[in-house]
Amino acid sequence: MKTTFEWIEGGGTTAPSGFLASGVEAGLKAGRTDMAMLLSASDCASAGLFTSNRMPAAPVLYDRKLEKGGKCRGVVVNVGCANAATGEAGYADCVETGRVAAEAAGVPVSRMFVCSTGTIGRRLALQRVLAGARAAAAALRPDGGADAARAIMTTDTVPKEAAVRFSFRGRQYTVGGMCKGAGMISPRLATTLIFLTTDAAAKRPALRAALAAGAEKSFNRITVDGDQSTNDTCLIFANGAAGGPDFAPGAPGWAAFSGAVAAVMLSLAKQIVRDGEGASKFVTVAVEGAKSAADAFAAARTVANSPLFKAACYGGDPNWGRVLCAVGNSGAACEERKTRIWFDDVCVFDRGKVASDEENARLADVMKQRAFEVRVDLGMGRASDAVYTSDLTHEYVNINADYTT
Amino acid sequence: MKTTFEWIEGGGTTAPSGFLASGVEAGLKAGRTDMAMLLSASDCASAGLFTSNRMPAAPVLYDRKLEKGGKCRGVVVNVGCANAATGEAGYADCVETGRVAAEAAGVPVSRMFVCSTGTIGRRLALQRVLAGARAAAAALRPDGGADAARAIMTTDTVPKEAAVRFSFRGRQYTVGGMCKGAGMISPRLATTLIFLTTDAAAKRPALRAALAAGAEKSFNRITVDGDQSTNDTCLIFANGAAGGPDFAPGAPGWAAFSGAVAAVMLSLAKQIVRDGEGASKFVTVAVEGAKSAADAFAAARTVANSPLFKAACYGGDPNWGRVLCAVGNSGAACEERKTRIWFDDVCVFDRGKVASDEENARLADVMKQRAFEVRVDLGMGRASDAVYTSDLTHEYVNINADYTT
Repeated sequence: MKTTFEWIEGGGTTAPSGFLASGVEAGLKAGRTDMAMLLSASDCASAGLFTSNRMPAAPVLYDRKLEKGGKCRGVVVNVGCANAATGEAGYADCVETGRVAAEAAGVPVSRMFVCSTGTIGRRLALQRVLAGARAAAAALRPDGGADAARAIMTTDTVPKEAAVRFSFRGRQYTVGGMCKGAGMISPRLATTLIFLTTDAAAKRPALRAALAAGAEKSFNRITVDGDQSTNDTCLIFANGAAGGPDFAPGAPGWAAFSGAVAAVMLSLAKQIVRDGEGASKFVTVAVEGAKSAADAFAAARTVANSPLFKAACYGGDPNWGRVLCAVGNSGAACEERKTRIWFDDVCVFDRGKVASDEENARLADVMKQRAFEVRVDLGMGRASDAVYTSDLTHEYVNINADYTT
Repeated sequence: MKTTFEWIEGGGTTAPSGFLASGVEAGLKAGRTDMAMLLSASDCASAGLFTSNRMPAAPVLYDRKLEKGGKCRGVVVNVGCANAATGEAGYADCVETGRVAAEAAGVPVSRMFVCSTGTIGRRLALQRVLAGARAAAAALRPDGGADAARAIMTTDTVPKEAAVRFSFRGRQYTVGGMCKGAGMISPRLATTLIFLTTDAAAKRPALRAALAAGAEKSFNRITVDGDQSTNDTCLIFANGAAGGPDFAPGAPGWAAFSGAVAAVMLSLAKQIVRDGEGASKFVTVAVEGAKSAADAFAAARTVANSPLFKAACYGGDPNWGRVLCAVGNSGAACEERKTRIWFDDVCVFDRGKVASDEENARLADVMKQRAFEVRVDLGMGRASDAVYTSDLTHEYVNINADYTT
């Protein structure tokens, strides 16, 4: 049985019942909202995934402890400062932020996560952040998801939200989410923050399982494994406001629930690529015929992360040889005489035979589009995978040449 | 005993006795020389290192066979077309090029390497290449090194040559070299071709050992391991014209000989970084206090390859947090509370304590320079390493957005 999702237009973290959110101006970034809060109106289960960077930011260290409790009700977020590389003093700032935010929201201190994103290596403007946390709590609204999504933006040019509805045994459930991303496709050092909400009931282990499975085919498909910022955080809150029994792996309805979580995550991940720093194009790199799943992922990822390929996509340069070269570098088992490469429906390389002038001309047309797919058939087996990437543009260099100034 | 080298100003592949070289216009690139030949006037030992890319170009397949013989006397090089992804037809083009070049140079076919660099996925303009090979042989001169170095340039803005002289047991020996590089610091898909010559005597195994040791501290320190183009090739020719016994590992004089080879390779590698595509800055990333040599290399390489760090170097943005974040991503054992980071003599992070405003101001001054060093002390052990990198600029995007057009 395949579950059908209904996408909720304009939906985000407050699409599920019983969630409140807000975005406020705390004076951390001039002339815009820069702090957000998300809260379940009632008791709630929670779970999170965190960066594997070995220099985690203070809020990551803080949230990891809270996450083990599995009962957080909300999160307070600031932009402008990552509170990373700030040592014990920065950790104390984070603790204080969490305490004030929890108090203002009326929940125990141990139930309020703290997230920060922005420049690494600067202390928080603590008094502003504390005042912002109080203001964010006061501004919480059942339809505040869009405000929150806007307030957590950094170099993002658009807020990123998604929500889906699904039915199981006559009951309707909703999963919503928001994220901030930017960075180019391989957001090596650009923080990704992802917040998901649902009115379904589920406990921490089930929520962790749903997050991990969803990330595998979404956020792990737009980034390089292990190449993570000091602050990357993905949190989910499940308040059970829709009623019904707990969803859990192996129990009825799990495919529908975890599928809804994965669908929201994939939508958010694709929105990040579309809004990649300075990005002008959305490129899908699909690999098939790989000897193993690991080979398929490695080949797709290596092409998607090649700065030369990404620059060629920007210029619309029909330089498909860079795809072949990247595949050869990926470590995936491959042979030139078995490999085929398409750009949309134009076959540019067929097992040792290069594209004709006419095919190269058609290729140039394909690459002029805002979105296209590169497909590589390795002819070595049956495994396949896909990675989503953006182009490397002048605007990317502009943004990152003077981020802090 | 430490051997001293004497650098030969303006020296290159024809600095050692008994070598001839040339650069000619074959009509592959409008208005410039685009083919080169290098030849030992007498019998010669040879060795080579080749790309580990699994989609090697036709000339790499061809040269690998010749290399086993250990007695090649020269190489013919074309730019404009990599003869990669060209299947059996491309391989036949390469064989024909080698045959015609060897014949024109008056050496057996099995003793003339062929190298190509340029766009992947196009057939060679064979008739022009064959005519160019004949012209290059006719133009060979004992002082042709500079012409050859100029002819092998692709997106390079300056030719790259180096030569050193050293004495051993009263005899003088010379090692010379040229290369083409470009690509940014991590020349993922940009071909590196390196040609070395010496009038010292040495056999293939010794030459391979010297190349491997030299590459380890030069070309392997400006690129990501295993991330290689379809055409990367490093060749060395030793004709023994200076007389004396063979140099070999364990035999007297080996340190002097292999040290000279390594010195020329390091000079060439640094020239590539300085001339990185669109590069405006030369940045040394030094890591010390690492738990292991592998950790030191991983940390230095991850920082040096971070596009965000490279873009910050371009803009002179004092965003040292990106260094810390990259170290945390490198896989190297590290802890924030043990880590220190300097930019030249400015300490920006000291075991959890961030830079003051005054230090950040000094940092901005450091980053305005054309060259500076980032030094990271992990405080975990005694291993150290250094990687050389360039900045990520608008010009890089320009070059690679329309390379083939």
